[in-house]
Amino acid sequence: MPLLNSDQLNQAARNLPMWTVDAGALQRSFEFRDFVAAMQFVNAVAALAEQHGHHPDIDIRYNQVLIRTWSHDSGGVTERDFRLAQAVDSTVSQ
Amino acid sequence: MPLLNSDQLNQAARNLPMWTVDAGALQRSFEFRDFVAAMQFVNAVAALAEQHGHHPDIDIRYNQVLIRTWSHDSGGVTERDFRLAQAVDSTVSQ
Repeated sequence: MPLLNSDQLNQAARNLPMWTVDAGALQRSFEFRDFVAAMQFVNAVAALAEQHGHHPDIDIRYNQVLIRTWSHDSGGVTERDFRLAQAVDSTVSQ
Repeated sequence: MPLLNSDQLNQAARNLPMWTVDAGALQRSFEFRDFVAAMQFVNAVAALAEQHGHHPDIDIRYNQVLIRTWSHDSGGVTERDFRLAQAVDSTVSQ
């Protein structure tokens, strides 16, 4: 799958205002009321990852979770990452 | 809770041969057959963390999981971290 060019990245960024592109990956940090709520989110993301066949890096820091997705085979951000990011956003109230 | 001194760290390391102390934290990386198995482990660790009232950092990289524990209030590794590490080891076949 081709990498997104800068126009496509900018357009996608408007649809995903809470996400940033950093070092070739699309990432967002989420904060929850406690660890249990954070783990519920992590499990929802894990289910989405299996559905999409696309697995982000997930860093858990008590009530904070960093999701970071890129396309290893393409070496950067592709349409697959944006689809996954949109699905992740749909699991939270923003 | 007091930090462990170097003698205590060495003794504890013998009981936890797969763990290393790095930058003031006790850590171990675990590898599983796939992401689903990794997530089962993460959920087991999460349950232990709640039981112990002590929550490690958890980094998920597809089938690899890094567990990193230290005692924030003490600024390093204490007995609590070793107890949690031993409990985490008990969930896997080493």
